[in-house]
Amino acid sequence: MLVALAGGVGAARMLRGLVDVMDPAEIVAVVNTGDDVVLHGLHISPDLDTVTYTLAGAINPDTGWGLSGESWAAMEALAAYGDGHAAWFRLGDQDLGTHLYRTNRLAAGATLSQVTAEIARRWGVEITLLPMSDDYVETRVTVAGHEIGFQEYFVGLHHEVAVEAVAFRGATDAAPAPGVLAAIERAECLLICPSNPIVSIGPILAVPGVRQAVEARRADAVAVSPIVGGRALKGPADHMLRELGHELSVVGVARLYAPLAATLVIDEADEHLAGAVEAEGMDALVTATVMTGRPEAAALARTVLGAHRERAAP
Amino acid sequence: MLVALAGGVGAARMLRGLVDVMDPAEIVAVVNTGDDVVLHGLHISPDLDTVTYTLAGAINPDTGWGLSGESWAAMEALAAYGDGHAAWFRLGDQDLGTHLYRTNRLAAGATLSQVTAEIARRWGVEITLLPMSDDYVETRVTVAGHEIGFQEYFVGLHHEVAVEAVAFRGATDAAPAPGVLAAIERAECLLICPSNPIVSIGPILAVPGVRQAVEARRADAVAVSPIVGGRALKGPADHMLRELGHELSVVGVARLYAPLAATLVIDEADEHLAGAVEAEGMDALVTATVMTGRPEAAALARTVLGAHRERAAP
Repeated sequence: MLVALAGGVGAARMLRGLVDVMDPAEIVAVVNTGDDVVLHGLHISPDLDTVTYTLAGAINPDTGWGLSGESWAAMEALAAYGDGHAAWFRLGDQDLGTHLYRTNRLAAGATLSQVTAEIARRWGVEITLLPMSDDYVETRVTVAGHEIGFQEYFVGLHHEVAVEAVAFRGATDAAPAPGVLAAIERAECLLICPSNPIVSIGPILAVPGVRQAVEARRADAVAVSPIVGGRALKGPADHMLRELGHELSVVGVARLYAPLAATLVIDEADEHLAGAVEAEGMDALVTATVMTGRPEAAALARTVLGAHRERAAP
Repeated sequence: MLVALAGGVGAARMLRGLVDVMDPAEIVAVVNTGDDVVLHGLHISPDLDTVTYTLAGAINPDTGWGLSGESWAAMEALAAYGDGHAAWFRLGDQDLGTHLYRTNRLAAGATLSQVTAEIARRWGVEITLLPMSDDYVETRVTVAGHEIGFQEYFVGLHHEVAVEAVAFRGATDAAPAPGVLAAIERAECLLICPSNPIVSIGPILAVPGVRQAVEARRADAVAVSPIVGGRALKGPADHMLRELGHELSVVGVARLYAPLAATLVIDEADEHLAGAVEAEGMDALVTATVMTGRPEAAALARTVLGAHRERAAP
């Protein structure tokens, strides 16, 4: 069994690569819910939805989020109410069906785990999707001295402002969702997907018990660097790392992940840093990590699994 | 100034007739919000929306509710999640924009009065729309010994079950929305629209102070019967009246409205009951009351205003 710690777009592509090269029934994804947000009364789980829609082959390939062939009647109607309340967080009409369903079920007393499984089933997702927690955990970022919600920073401000601090509100009182710790303990291979280490993987590790469980499986854990050639392929991981005092390179990623995983998969563009990664205590595995399409994702998945198998049976 | 107590479809048509024959700036509608419901996390105000969309000329003429030219992508996506959670309360994509806006603004601390005015402005509604109250008032009906929400009865059960009791939860603690009592006090003409007396006009009168304010203006008040030839033109007013022990006729309506209005407008189909209506203490005004189209609504409005003018200056 493979257990993947997952954020949004990068993780979703990695998981789709994995289902192409191994039995989906053997994959468990533990997904970040620190980005979850209640907007207009609706409970939105951006990372869970991105993973679900990607695995369903329904994702909008141009944006990496939302559904392909989406219509926008509700957002246009909302925008007609005026600037101040315009739809800064774009929700497509079909996508709204998911948020209405989730909100409805949560209001009826279902847990986020249950609703996530129901949504995955409706989309024909064959891997097991677990939210990191059924409890409230909210990623908040401080910009210009003010703490704001993650989506306000990420979508509202286009992650163009400097981040001074990150906090996971509620994390200390949260429990891992049912099955999360057991899956990590029983996993043959633990994979940290190429997601933002601070605001995608960070919230998962902030749920009490998860970091320790991952550290205990370090020997069987592989991380894929989200930083390639000193840049994030998607999102603000690059300048966020720098703003929070980390080195913006695979070496900076290695410093964050060394206690958690034995191996760091880095891109060929960063081959010259392999030695520096190893100096941080991680094996460096150099391969093509940019998942431009499904074949590239499958090739990366095959390499990651091969490397793990080699380590496991030397 | 004319003040109208209004429910949904019948009231909306009556109001559209009025704006065709008098200055819209002189019309205030006090609208039932006992039917309001939170569904999937969204605050829905069915009667306010029906009045707003009708006055905007945007209502779906076939159903009498919702927007014309509506799309249903969100509902179809929601329905795909399975029977148990199917979209029994149909919300069109454009219509969702209104509910997202209202929910958002209420969450931001705006009152329902403020949001109602904003929504009316966006739709170009020229009359003043007031919710009956900014406070929680919920119409609940008892069917087969169980109390359920009004929309569950009205939409979910297609109002096909017998009603044993009606209650307005929260009403005793609610206050009339700002401007409601003052408008009733200052009105030259008070109009009780052809709406369900029990679950459309009833909740408005249940807000503390409103019934007394209306009774004080009885001489200047005209009610239009929603019962024509012993039947309701729309909705369950007919069997609900009977189930709750009222006579199912304009005479039954007269018994309910006699303390509130001097005049009852009844349809030509009920001309033979004019004497019985007058025996209940109301003047009976016989005219064509079925608003099959805009001209018929305008004609009814003209008759109502004429009758009132005659009374005021005999």
